[in-house]
Amino acid sequence: MSMFEPNKEFIGKLQSCISEKNDHGTLQLLEGLHAADIAELYNELDVEEAKYLYLLLEGEKAADALMELDEDDREELLESVPSEIIARHFVDNMDTDDAVELIRELDEDEQEEVLSHIEDVEQAGDIVDLLKYDVDTAGGIMGTEMIIVNEEWSMPECLKEMRNQAEEMENIYHIYVVDEDNKLKGIFPLKKMITSPSVSRVKHVMVKDPISVKVDTPIDEVSHVFERYDLVAIPVIDSIGRLVGQITVDDVMDEMIEQSERDYQLASGISQDVESSDNVLVQTSARLPWLVIGMIGGLSNSVILGKFESFFATNPKMALFIPLIGGTGGNVGIQSSAIVVQGLANKTLNISKIWVQVIKEAAVALINASMISLLVFLYNWFMFGTNTVTYSVSISLFAVVMFASIFGTLVPLTLERFKIDPAIATGPFITITNDIIGMLIYMGVSSLLS
Amino acid sequence: MSMFEPNKEFIGKLQSCISEKNDHGTLQLLEGLHAADIAELYNELDVEEAKYLYLLLEGEKAADALMELDEDDREELLESVPSEIIARHFVDNMDTDDAVELIRELDEDEQEEVLSHIEDVEQAGDIVDLLKYDVDTAGGIMGTEMIIVNEEWSMPECLKEMRNQAEEMENIYHIYVVDEDNKLKGIFPLKKMITSPSVSRVKHVMVKDPISVKVDTPIDEVSHVFERYDLVAIPVIDSIGRLVGQITVDDVMDEMIEQSERDYQLASGISQDVESSDNVLVQTSARLPWLVIGMIGGLSNSVILGKFESFFATNPKMALFIPLIGGTGGNVGIQSSAIVVQGLANKTLNISKIWVQVIKEAAVALINASMISLLVFLYNWFMFGTNTVTYSVSISLFAVVMFASIFGTLVPLTLERFKIDPAIATGPFITITNDIIGMLIYMGVSSLLS
Repeated sequence: MSMFEPNKEFIGKLQSCISEKNDHGTLQLLEGLHAADIAELYNELDVEEAKYLYLLLEGEKAADALMELDEDDREELLESVPSEIIARHFVDNMDTDDAVELIRELDEDEQEEVLSHIEDVEQAGDIVDLLKYDVDTAGGIMGTEMIIVNEEWSMPECLKEMRNQAEEMENIYHIYVVDEDNKLKGIFPLKKMITSPSVSRVKHVMVKDPISVKVDTPIDEVSHVFERYDLVAIPVIDSIGRLVGQITVDDVMDEMIEQSERDYQLASGISQDVESSDNVLVQTSARLPWLVIGMIGGLSNSVILGKFESFFATNPKMALFIPLIGGTGGNVGIQSSAIVVQGLANKTLNISKIWVQVIKEAAVALINASMISLLVFLYNWFMFGTNTVTYSVSISLFAVVMFASIFGTLVPLTLERFKIDPAIATGPFITITNDIIGMLIYMGVSSLLS
Repeated sequence: MSMFEPNKEFIGKLQSCISEKNDHGTLQLLEGLHAADIAELYNELDVEEAKYLYLLLEGEKAADALMELDEDDREELLESVPSEIIARHFVDNMDTDDAVELIRELDEDEQEEVLSHIEDVEQAGDIVDLLKYDVDTAGGIMGTEMIIVNEEWSMPECLKEMRNQAEEMENIYHIYVVDEDNKLKGIFPLKKMITSPSVSRVKHVMVKDPISVKVDTPIDEVSHVFERYDLVAIPVIDSIGRLVGQITVDDVMDEMIEQSERDYQLASGISQDVESSDNVLVQTSARLPWLVIGMIGGLSNSVILGKFESFFATNPKMALFIPLIGGTGGNVGIQSSAIVVQGLANKTLNISKIWVQVIKEAAVALINASMISLLVFLYNWFMFGTNTVTYSVSISLFAVVMFASIFGTLVPLTLERFKIDPAIATGPFITITNDIIGMLIYMGVSSLLS
């Protein structure tokens, strides 16, 4: 089976089944579709059609499909659904990590109402506990559904218990082994079930001292651990080593994709999570802020250049090189900051080595600055001879490249040190700042030389 | 166990063990370390030390650690290692997907030599077959190590065979079920081993018609399938449905990270894969090309502005707004192209809906253009009154925002249509182009109005 792509005919049939309230026909059309495929249909339906569909679906599929939706779509769909139905039809059929994600998206009053309607008291308790963890930490994305066995158990005991626990689970990645205090002692790979089924005790076949994360480990570090050790699931322990949850690779993948999309958008001057499918107003409100900041930057430049207005009257050639100097500063600054932001994200750059990076960056800048200002000097010399503009343009370019490189390196490093996401320092911020500094340098050098 | 971070003391001990050729001490230090941790040590050692270490390690660990290195580091390490040792010490201990990755990195003569030294003829045959697939397709990253059972087998037969096959495998994600022609019929989830061990035939418990990809499915589509269906492994089939390989989530994760880093770098004007840890020359050569293109753009602008040099002499105020107009065009263009590039990457934007996107973009642009040019008009009116510059700046800004938005949307969509990576259209390319067009519009409008 390959990936499901809904065609117009399918959508048409589905819509007519829905409009006729043909429950049987609707369910028949959706039969065999994965929850993620059902979620894909959301954009093709209006909210009322989608609501009918999600409430008609059998609980587990409905819950899965709901969690495959984008956050905005999910909010829209649930807007007029009563808390009791959210709890009984959706949350009751979810793993705790999904339930926590969903409940976090509701407003406070609704959170309590939904929690009070959850049927399984134990699950409700787990969810309340999970809600306490910070959303950016391992605790905030972990689930509590795991198969757990005791290290002292014999294999038949263990198998029996595994059978009991496994019934309720969709996927099994690992079987976790704990001691009588619930402290994590090992992992029992499913492979061992095949290769050594007749060993006496769990603790003799388990893999001891497995890689784990703490509840308060930040999510980006969790992703990094998955990536380094090629994991599919990781146990989460509390401060005294007790097993409290599990994070699976699909959740980490979602986090990684969201993070890289966020970084990319920040670098492109788009200030909130926005998709090409969003409407015109959402798009505008995501983009206008940086454009206005850019506009203020541009107007500031007009003030700076205004102080030297008489220069342009007497030597109008100076105006011709404004775009070159501003543009070069912007390009250099973005390169430098991107190298730092990426290095910090993939942990190849260590914040303790800040000066090593700055010195290296200065060396790169020195070569680039020399090359660019030499080439421009040769061009201007050929075109205009050795007048003031020829000199001041090349000297300014040299200074701008040096400054923009070091500035582009220092700003994200400084933000990181103050625990602010360094990615906000890329893109328009660096371009606009370097544009202004470029003009200051150009005007400064020109007034010194004239 | 949490993530391993080597400290100075550890590195010191390791280096002294290596310099004393103390095999036993070296191995003792590395005992218990994951292959990925050993790979982390590479940057702390010189090449000769690292080579000693990798050749000393037991084959499987050495092979795993080698494949955890960056491509450049791996190349450096293997540079003076004879083909026979590459084959016997490393490739013989690898899964076929890793072996193919390694062999692809060697030059042609060395490829053949290494292949001829592989001990297991069947593995060598698999590798030669895998090398035929395009590196950007499912076939190019799949491995052939899988547990395969026949749909007609009884459970005891199946278990016996599984035990045989599982011995050689590091991880087991799924057990694949085929018919007598080796056509993929289903997946046998390991969970079933626990929950229904006594069923008569494999085909009665398998999950039928599992999601699969074809050997020629492009990698970005493979990632998308993993992401949509939250998979940990996917079977790969040939054109007539025979099972030929398996792709696992860790390989897909690596691909996704590389792709997002590549896009980010392209958007930042860095032209080849470069890390903050690379040396000054590598960094310079990755960055200078875009800076030179930017310089040519800037000089082109000076030529355009040069045609209007007399304008600046008579009306020097015009020069003050050059950075505003160029900068705004650049900012708008990057936003528009980023929305398209991201939409294409995460498949929320369909190329068949190109005109929908362009019209939506035009609507967003209309609002942004009106806002920005109105604000600037009010500012200039207040500062300078209603002279020619006040009018021409605002009219130009309006035109530049409209143009840059539509251009920023159309360029990546056009590239995508011609199967060129749309990400190259972001960043400096868009900024430089829009800067030039901005100047043309500004000068054009100004000469019409004066």
